[in-house]
Amino acid sequence: MSAEEVRELYDFAVPRVLAAGKIMLEAKVIKGEEKNGVEWDWVTEFDGQIEQVLIGQMRHRYPEHKFIGEESSSNAELTDAPTWIIDPIDGTENFIHKLRLSCLSLGVTIGKEQVFGIVFNPHMDELFTAIRGEGAFLNGERIHVSSQNDFRQSFFNYELGMARTSDYYYNLYMFRLKHLIPKVMSFRCLGCAALGLCYVACGRTDAYQCDGLHIWDAAAGTLIVREAGGYVVDSSGRDFELAKPNFLAASTKALADQYLRIEREADEEMSRALKVKEEFAP
Amino acid sequence: MSAEEVRELYDFAVPRVLAAGKIMLEAKVIKGEEKNGVEWDWVTEFDGQIEQVLIGQMRHRYPEHKFIGEESSSNAELTDAPTWIIDPIDGTENFIHKLRLSCLSLGVTIGKEQVFGIVFNPHMDELFTAIRGEGAFLNGERIHVSSQNDFRQSFFNYELGMARTSDYYYNLYMFRLKHLIPKVMSFRCLGCAALGLCYVACGRTDAYQCDGLHIWDAAAGTLIVREAGGYVVDSSGRDFELAKPNFLAASTKALADQYLRIEREADEEMSRALKVKEEFAP
Repeated sequence: MSAEEVRELYDFAVPRVLAAGKIMLEAKVIKGEEKNGVEWDWVTEFDGQIEQVLIGQMRHRYPEHKFIGEESSSNAELTDAPTWIIDPIDGTENFIHKLRLSCLSLGVTIGKEQVFGIVFNPHMDELFTAIRGEGAFLNGERIHVSSQNDFRQSFFNYELGMARTSDYYYNLYMFRLKHLIPKVMSFRCLGCAALGLCYVACGRTDAYQCDGLHIWDAAAGTLIVREAGGYVVDSSGRDFELAKPNFLAASTKALADQYLRIEREADEEMSRALKVKEEFAP
Repeated sequence: MSAEEVRELYDFAVPRVLAAGKIMLEAKVIKGEEKNGVEWDWVTEFDGQIEQVLIGQMRHRYPEHKFIGEESSSNAELTDAPTWIIDPIDGTENFIHKLRLSCLSLGVTIGKEQVFGIVFNPHMDELFTAIRGEGAFLNGERIHVSSQNDFRQSFFNYELGMARTSDYYYNLYMFRLKHLIPKVMSFRCLGCAALGLCYVACGRTDAYQCDGLHIWDAAAGTLIVREAGGYVVDSSGRDFELAKPNFLAASTKALADQYLRIEREADEEMSRALKVKEEFAP
């Protein structure tokens, strides 16, 4: 697909993402008083509505394209076809709690390559965008990552949300935090993957990490980081794979390498500790 | 002082806080490219300027009052005199990084009692206010804490910023996180004490904790939480003391009690572990 054709897709997408974001803002129905189960069901339904509106518009215009959405796709396998990858509300728990750190994320791939990404936080009216090879932008102004290359001076945003899901993640976090929190300058958990990536892109944080994610969390934001001059790797040491991301995004490769070294030390200590525990188990 | 006189102080303060917040917004000079040292010096100076402008206006009008400011007060002891307690930029690291989660905080005490509090985040145009006995407000609309009373369903914001400052805090966090992160529904570190309190007040989070703080971090926000129906205790188990706060703010007493119980277990485990370590030290 030519650069002009990609630009046409992008120009088609931006106003539709902005309009869908407005729907998010209108979600005033959510009450803190409601039980959590009810909230979740309601939000999931709302999520699905935004996704269906967006996918409907895109499929109508580009019927031959593929669509992957958080709510509608059990099969998120990437093919060579032009593919629209949508997370209608990223940062769902923040959204439920009206924390204003939630967004809509849309990434497009062609031949499995990310060609553009759009992340919109309607609560702050912030639109992050990138077209491959053309840089990254916040509300139309060029953005760049910070120049931070020393993890001891770095501002690190790390999600701990998987701690509840398994012993593996719980142990992983505990060993990594043991090595990280006494060293980094600042530690944050902001709770929104796509914004976490965009905040590295515009220098609001120096690094962002989130494990165990899905393609729709990463499809737009990882391109925006790279187009802002940043570096994205798989935090587990494997090759970065958009469909199964465990990403570490950092403003510089030097910074990413320092984080990865610390985390490998932590992970090895975890393996040794769990092995000892197993050997001494009754 | 009569309720009318307190209201007069409050009416005098609000427009001045809003105007000082505008100065924060104009701080576009901060560059990600600058070295951290330079940034910090610059921000401290800027911080001090906002504080001096505010204190100057207040002292001019109320020369007999006392003033405690983050930048100007080495002596933060509370007396019975009407006392204006100011943090010109709370969440300084967020501010430097343009994370939009920073604010100006002003609390006033008379006879050592908190009589009103004002917290303004100019980046989101959010003004949190409370006059004692009259409820809490966000941009003029009444706010209330959530009804959350189960820590396993709770949205918890806990600052880990002290981890770098001493072994004590580092160990404290590690043992508490060990007990907390596998249990709470969501964990956040947002990095701004006054906003952390206000977010409990308006139900954006269910609980907020920050240890080792100063009077200017707590003077406005703790009143706003209580006026929104929430509960504030000292997380260390001592009586809450505004001048030396280690606060845990929660939407309900039931929720606070559950957190305190878990943290006491964690703290006791820490004591035992450190004692064992000491006994077996070479």
